[in-house]
Amino acid sequence: MDRLLSGYRRFRAEMWPSERATYEALAMYGQNPHTLVIACSDSRVDPQRVFGAGPGEMFSVRNIAGLVPPYAPDSHHHGTSAAVEYAVRVLKVKRAVVLGHAQCGGVRAMAEGAPSDAQDFVSRWMEIAAPVLETIPRVGPLHELLPKYEAAVVRLSLANLRTFPWVAEAEEAGSLQVEGFQFDIHTGVLSRLAGEDFVAVDQSSF
Amino acid sequence: MDRLLSGYRRFRAEMWPSERATYEALAMYGQNPHTLVIACSDSRVDPQRVFGAGPGEMFSVRNIAGLVPPYAPDSHHHGTSAAVEYAVRVLKVKRAVVLGHAQCGGVRAMAEGAPSDAQDFVSRWMEIAAPVLETIPRVGPLHELLPKYEAAVVRLSLANLRTFPWVAEAEEAGSLQVEGFQFDIHTGVLSRLAGEDFVAVDQSSF
Amino acid sequence: MDRLLSGYRRFRAEMWPSERATYEALAMYGQNPHTLVIACSDSRVDPQRVFGAGPGEMFSVRNIAGLVPPYAPDSHHHGTSAAVEYAVRVLKVKRAVVLGHAQCGGVRAMAEGAPSDAQDFVSRWMEIAAPVLETIPRVGPLHELLPKYEAAVVRLSLANLRTFPWVAEAEEAGSLQVEGFQFDIHTGVLSRLAGEDFVAVDQSSF
Amino acid sequence: MDRLLSGYRRFRAEMWPSERATYEALAMYGQNPHTLVIACSDSRVDPQRVFGAGPGEMFSVRNIAGLVPPYAPDSHHHGTSAAVEYAVRVLKVKRAVVLGHAQCGGVRAMAEGAPSDAQDFVSRWMEIAAPVLETIPRVGPLHELLPKYEAAVVRLSLANLRTFPWVAEAEEAGSLQVEGFQFDIHTGVLSRLAGEDFVAVDQSSF
Repeated sequence: MDRLLSGYRRFRAEMWPSERATYEALAMYGQNPHTLVIACSDSRVDPQRVFGAGPGEMFSVRNIAGLVPPYAPDSHHHGTSAAVEYAVRVLKVKRAVVLGHAQCGGVRAMAEGAPSDAQDFVSRWMEIAAPVLETIPRVGPLHELLPKYEAAVVRLSLANLRTFPWVAEAEEAGSLQVEGFQFDIHTGVLSRLAGEDFVAVDQSSF
Repeated sequence: MDRLLSGYRRFRAEMWPSERATYEALAMYGQNPHTLVIACSDSRVDPQRVFGAGPGEMFSVRNIAGLVPPYAPDSHHHGTSAAVEYAVRVLKVKRAVVLGHAQCGGVRAMAEGAPSDAQDFVSRWMEIAAPVLETIPRVGPLHELLPKYEAAVVRLSLANLRTFPWVAEAEEAGSLQVEGFQFDIHTGVLSRLAGEDFVAVDQSSF
Repeated sequence: MDRLLSGYRRFRAEMWPSERATYEALAMYGQNPHTLVIACSDSRVDPQRVFGAGPGEMFSVRNIAGLVPPYAPDSHHHGTSAAVEYAVRVLKVKRAVVLGHAQCGGVRAMAEGAPSDAQDFVSRWMEIAAPVLETIPRVGPLHELLPKYEAAVVRLSLANLRTFPWVAEAEEAGSLQVEGFQFDIHTGVLSRLAGEDFVAVDQSSF
Repeated sequence: MDRLLSGYRRFRAEMWPSERATYEALAMYGQNPHTLVIACSDSRVDPQRVFGAGPGEMFSVRNIAGLVPPYAPDSHHHGTSAAVEYAVRVLKVKRAVVLGHAQCGGVRAMAEGAPSDAQDFVSRWMEIAAPVLETIPRVGPLHELLPKYEAAVVRLSLANLRTFPWVAEAEEAGSLQVEGFQFDIHTGVLSRLAGEDFVAVDQSSF
C-alpha cells in the first residue's frame, strides 16, 4: 500500500467534502494568509498541526532548524529570505512567527558537528546559527546545552528577521507582529517567547 | 481572539489525546520519516494535509515554488540542499517528493517579473527556475503559459535533485524513490508525474 | 504580429459583412441603445459579450468595480455621472444595469488596501464603495468576505444610481428599469439581483 | 422577450463552450490584459468588437468621448485616472490605446452646448476637452468642424495620458506603447494616429 496515495485518499474522503468551498474560494480569490511561519523541516513539528491552521491560513517556510539568515540582498539565491519577502511585502501577513522545537537535529549538528556522512551542506547551513555558540558558555553536558541552544536559535532568527528593513518598518508601524514559539515534542506543550524566556502557553485561559 | 493560540488549543483538545503516544515515541526514539517532501510555501498547499500525513511521517522543505537548486557544495548557505542532505543521508528517507501546485505566485513572478515592491530576493530566487523559460515557447496569453511553467518547474526540481550524487546513487540503488506531484487547489485533485506528463491520481484504485 | 490590428482584420473579415447595414443605419440615424450598462474595467467581464449585445444596443460605462457615485452636480468632472445623464436624459435608455463580477481587483484593493505602487488614484476611487465595509462585519478570512463585498458594491451602485433625481423619476414613471447583475468568471453564470440576493439566471426559462 | 437574458442565453449556447477553458484559466490565474483601451461609451463603438479582442485581452475604460483628464492626484474621485493607474501600474499592460470615433455626441455637446435637459454633468465633463476649441479655428459649418474636434480630442487625451508620470516613464522605458485610433461608424474603417494625422489602417498588409 502506498502511504502517500492512501493518505491522499483519506484527505479526499474525510477532509475535502467539508473544505471544498474553502479551497474553491482560495483558488478564486488567491491566498491571504494571516501568518508567516518559519519552522524546522523536522517531521515531528508540523506548524499547521500545532497551530490548528486550515488551508489558506499560514504561509510556511521550512528549513533545517527554522533559521532566518540576516538581510543580505546580494547576487546569491536566498530561499528563506525570498519567502519572507513574499509573505511580508506581497501578501502582507499580519504575523511573522518563528517556531523552534526540542530535540532539533540541526542544532545538535551545530553543537557536535554534522554526521560524518552529511558534510556537503548541513554544517555550512547551520553556520547561520553559530553566533549562539558564543553567547552560551559551553559548560555542562550536551543534553543540558542543547535546549539553551535551541532557545537561542529562535531568538537569533527573530533578530535576523528584524534586520530586513521592511520587516522592521512593518513591525514599527504596527502592521506586523513578530513572535517566537517553541514546541516540545514529548509533552506537546507550546511555549511563547516573552522577553528572553519561553513561557508555556496557558491552555485554559483562552 | 488569537487565531494561533485558539488553534493550538484545538490541537491539544482534539488531536493530542489520540496522538500523544505517537509524539512521545517520536521524542524518545527520534524521527524516522518515510518521505522528504519539497513543496511551495503557499498557504493553500499543505503537503501533510494533501498526503494525509501524521506526525513523524514527512520531512518537509518549503520555499517559494518548491524549488530544488542544482548540487553546488560551495561556501554559501544552501537551506534546501542542506535539508535534502539531512533527509537523504542522515534520515535515509525512502522517498523524495516534489509537490507543485496550480496558481503559484513564484512561477508567476518568474514569468512576468516580481511585484515592484518585492525586488530584494524573490526574483533572484526564481532564477533557479529560469531554464524552463527557454524550453517553453513564450507564445499565447500568460494564463495559458503559467500551467506549462508550473509543470516544467516540478520537472526541473526533480532533475536538479538528481544532480546530488548521493540522491542519484540512492535512486540507482533502489533505496530512494524520486517522484513529482502536482496539486490543483481549485479541484483538490492530485496528479502524479508519469514520464513527461502529470496524470490525475485515481482515487479508487488504491 | 500586432494583436490589435490582426483583431481588427478579423472584425472586418468576419463580422463587418453581416453587420455593415447595421453600422450604416447607426451612422445615418444615430444610436438608440435600449440599455445603459455600468460595469467593471476588468478584461474578463465584457458586458457586450455576456449580454450578447450587438452594435448600437448598450451604452457602456466602464470603470474600476463598476461604481456609480451618489448624485453630486458640483463643479468637478464626473465621468460616470455624465454618462448616466447622457444615457438616461438624452438617449432615454429603457434599462440601467449595473454588472458586478467575482474576483474584482478594485473590491480587493478596497478591502486590503491598494497595491503599494498604485496609491495615486485607486484607493480614493474605491472610497465610493467604502460604505459597504460598515455594513458587513469584518469577520472571517478575506476570501469569504470578498464575495459579500462584491455583492454589496452592486447594491450600493444601484442605490447611488437612484439618488439621481431624473433616474428615480424615470424609474418611478416606469420608463426606466434599474437592475443589478453579477457575472461569475469561472463558471460563466450570470446572476440577477432579486431583493437582497443574487439568483442565477435560469438558462432554460426564456 | 428580454433582450439581455436572451443575449446571455446566446452567449452561453454559442460562445461559452469554446471559451470555457479561457474563462476558467482567467479565473484561476487572474487577468493579464495586453492592452488598456480608453473609449467612448457610445453603443456603436465597442472596442472589443473593433479590435476582435476575446476575454482577458483588453482592460477597458469607457466614458463620454473617451476622455483622459490631466494627472491630478487630489482628494477627488477620478474614475478614469484610477483605471489608468490600475492598468499601467498594477496589471502592467503593454499598450495604452485611446479610441475615438466619428459622430461623437459628447464632442458635439462640447461644440454646440449640451442638450437643454442634460445640464447637470455632461457639459462639465466635456470641459476636459475644451482646450481643443482654442486650437481649432471656429470657421466653417459644424459638420466640418466636428471631425476636426474629434481628432483633436484623441490627441488631447493622449497628451493628458502622458502627464501621468508613471505612464511617461513606462513609455520612455519602452515597456508601454501609447497610441491613438479612430473608428468610423459609417464605413467601419479604423484609422491610426501617425504624427498629427489619422491614417486608415491598411487591411491587407498584415
